[in-house]
Parts: sequence; structure tokens; C-alpha cells
Amino acid sequence: MTYCVGMSLEEGLVIIADTRTNAGVDNVSTYKKLHTLLDEEQDLVVAASAGSLSVTQAMLSILKEGLEPQFEGAPRRFLYLAPSMFRVAELVGEALSIARREVGRTLDGTGINADVSLLLGGRMGDEPLKLYLIYSEGNFIETQQDCPYAQIGELKYGKPVLDRALQWDSPLDEAVKVGLISFDSTMRSNLSVGLPLDMIVIPSDRDRAPIRRRIDAHDEYFRMLSAMWGRLLNEARHQVPDPPFMRE
Amino acid sequence: MTYCVGMSLEEGLVIIADTRTNAGVDNVSTYKKLHTLLDEEQDLVVAASAGSLSVTQAMLSILKEGLEPQFEGAPRRFLYLAPSMFRVAELVGEALSIARREVGRTLDGTGINADVSLLLGGRMGDEPLKLYLIYSEGNFIETQQDCPYAQIGELKYGKPVLDRALQWDSPLDEAVKVGLISFDSTMRSNLSVGLPLDMIVIPSDRDRAPIRRRIDAHDEYFRMLSAMWGRLLNEARHQVPDPPFMRE
Repeated sequence: MTYCVGMSLEEGLVIIADTRTNAGVDNVSTYKKLHTLLDEEQDLVVAASAGSLSVTQAMLSILKEGLEPQFEGAPRRFLYLAPSMFRVAELVGEALSIARREVGRTLDGTGINADVSLLLGGRMGDEPLKLYLIYSEGNFIETQQDCPYAQIGELKYGKPVLDRALQWDSPLDEAVKVGLISFDSTMRSNLSVGLPLDMIVIPSDRDRAPIRRRIDAHDEYFRMLSAMWGRLLNEARHQVPDPPFMRE
Repeated sequence: MTYCVGMSLEEGLVIIADTRTNAGVDNVSTYKKLHTLLDEEQDLVVAASAGSLSVTQAMLSILKEGLEPQFEGAPRRFLYLAPSMFRVAELVGEALSIARREVGRTLDGTGINADVSLLLGGRMGDEPLKLYLIYSEGNFIETQQDCPYAQIGELKYGKPVLDRALQWDSPLDEAVKVGLISFDSTMRSNLSVGLPLDMIVIPSDRDRAPIRRRIDAHDEYFRMLSAMWGRLLNEARHQVPDPPFMRE
């Protein structure tokens, strides 16, 4: 299983992904699920993936080799040639769809799932930051100010805190904190989501450099957050009065 | 969709169920999902159901008519004749399995799901209180002190607070409060779980009467809890320091 969350806010973009993969509960390993697809002067594109690892890797290879030309004599289609994040999302969706079909064929009848979903975020050239949720069929949606986040994988345990806390104008610091609380709740309830986490923060302000960070079991901030959040929730619960109808 | 939670604690048993049913999002109604199966001097058995409404109703009818005798000349098998909660769970599981098979046959090829899961709780005679989770196949498990709760239906949004807060020795008042917080989180994130809620609390102490309550949108305690919990979570979040690595 996997959990990844992306947030596209006024101040910038945050993507956090866990690294646990498993084929059954008896075969668990650590794989990076946050991939840098493009990192050039003006262009920065990252993707977090949930689902079949082999389909994800096939998709990444297809993107690296460039997609087939659209007509004879045309050049292969590379991400760096795309004029906008929308076109990047189209290419990634197409690569995903091809990879899923090719790998899926080898899995026919095995009952193994070849689905992959992606969070794709970043910017091309002068464009503002964008965040897309790409479905396993290759189609996609963009986040909006009304719902500035997207999740893939094991999303339900960590969704309530996002619904309560995250707005388009939430500061980036706050957003990272809320994202990590969302991971803390998820990891408590589902063992197949686990540390370390990979994170990238891309500020809207181009003068601020992107922040990349791996948060492992020794990360002081995350340990503090996890312990403090548990304690604060306990305290909050004790502050809510007991139901009066229990003494009727 | 549905959400039901049951808790079997030292001080007693709590079952809470929502009442929203829907066939698609354009056909939503209110149905009681908390059923009293047996309510006699020493015996009190209730069940909360999630899943196909027609299978649930068929199962209830089968239980009411009594299950077929086990051999010719033997009496029909009614719940009130069962010597223990374990035997009650077996009969309910059998009735569910029959109902699912019969209704399921009429649904063949329609893609409509005939699954039902149940929380079955209560006591027979002198026995202590018991809580069972009955799967759609009719088999079941009993809750234990290590994990004193069970959920059916849309369970993930409301699970983190149970995992953090609920222990075998949690007082009944606290358990009801935690259960309602769990519902509050679920209803925020999934529209197909909704008020009113039906609740029953059966104290282990036989001198205390069971408490039955319907909690609707006007319930003052639930409105207070929902507003206060939202505010306390906000405050808790603000108390957690922002990540230091964002300013590096």
C-alpha cells in the first residue's frame, strides 16, 4: 500500500509520499515513490505514485525514452519539450496508459492489479504551479482553490484532518505540518504505510528554493509531532464533556 | 453507505449506527439499522447492519420465523431458544448466509452487491456481554480486550480516534463520547453516512437499565461535541510547532 498527499496552495506546492511497498505482508520493502521527472532551470516536475511498482517503473522508462512520435518523421515526445503542465500531464497520462496496458497483459488472469495513480505537480516555464491527480486510465483532474489537495493510495485515515485544516491560503509551514499529521494518523491505522517519507515543497515565490527532505524514524520534528499530536488529541477529548444522557 | 461501531468494554457495551441508506446518490433515505433481535427478562440482543437492505430485511424475517429444524420433527430454531450468545451468533450467521444466497440469486448479473455485515451484541441469561462482527459469509469473530471495538461499513475515517482513545477499561461515558467523535469525523468526510444516529448502551451492571437514544440534527449534545471537537482540533494543530526545516 501507499499513501501520498499533494497540496497546491497560494504559497506553493507540497507533495509527501511514503516509501513502503509490499507484495503481501511477508514481503515489505522501501521504494522511493516520489520521482523527479524534470528539473531544469525553469521547469520542475515531480510525481508521486501509488499502485503497481512495475507499471510505475515502465511508465518512467517510457517517459525517459520519449513517447512515440505522433506522425512519421516527427520527433519523439519528451517531457521537456512540453509547453505547459497540462501537456506534461497528458504525456504522463499517455505513458501510464501504455505501461498499464503492456504490463497488464502479462498479468492477465493472475488477479494481480496493474493500476497506478499519480500526483503530478510542478511548473513549466513562467506558468504558476499546478497539481494533477492522474487516474490509472491516464485521465486526470487538476486541484482547485475550493479543494486544494489530492490524495492517492490509502487515503481515508488521513483525510479528516485535511478536510478540517487545509485551505488555499494556508501557509506552507502549516500545510507541511497538516500533511505530516495526516501521515501520522494513516500510519497508526495501516501498517502498510510507513516511514521514511519523501517530501518536496516548491514555493510559489521563485526566489525561494524548493525544499526536499526525507523524514525517517529518527527525524526529531516528526517524532515530536507524532507524540505531541497524540497527547493533544487526548487532552482535547478530555475537554469535551461526557454525554449528559448517560446519567438519566 | 453506512457506518456502525460497537464497543465491548469492562463497564458495558455500546453500539452506534447511522441511518442513511442510498441507492446511488440521487436516492437517499433514512432507515433504522440498529435492530433489537431479542428483548426479554434476561436476554437482550441487538444487531447493527451494513450493506444490502433487502438482504438485511430477509435475514430479519428468517430469524423471526425461526430457522428450519435441524432434523425432521425437531422444532424450528428461534433466537430465544439459544443457550448462549455464541449460539445466537451462529443462528444469525446462518440466517444471513441463507438470505444472501436467496436474494443474491435474484441479483445475479446485475452487479448489485448482496453483501451484509453485522455487529451483534448483547447477552443471554447469566452470560457476560458479548460483541461479534459477523461477515457477509455468515462467519464471525468476537471482540477481545486487546481490541475492544468493531466497525462495519465506512470505517476508515472514524478509526484513528478509536485506535487512540479506546481501551477495555475506558468508562462507558467516555466510550460514547469517543464513538460520537468517530461518527463526526466520518460524516464530515463521507456524505453517505448521516444523522440521525441510533445508539444503545448496555451496562455490565445489571442494575443499570440499557440506554437507547436517537441522536438527530437537533441533538444539543452532539451539536456541541461536533463544534467543540472542530475547535479543539484547530487549537491542537496550532500548538504543534511548524517544521523547522522549512526555514533552512
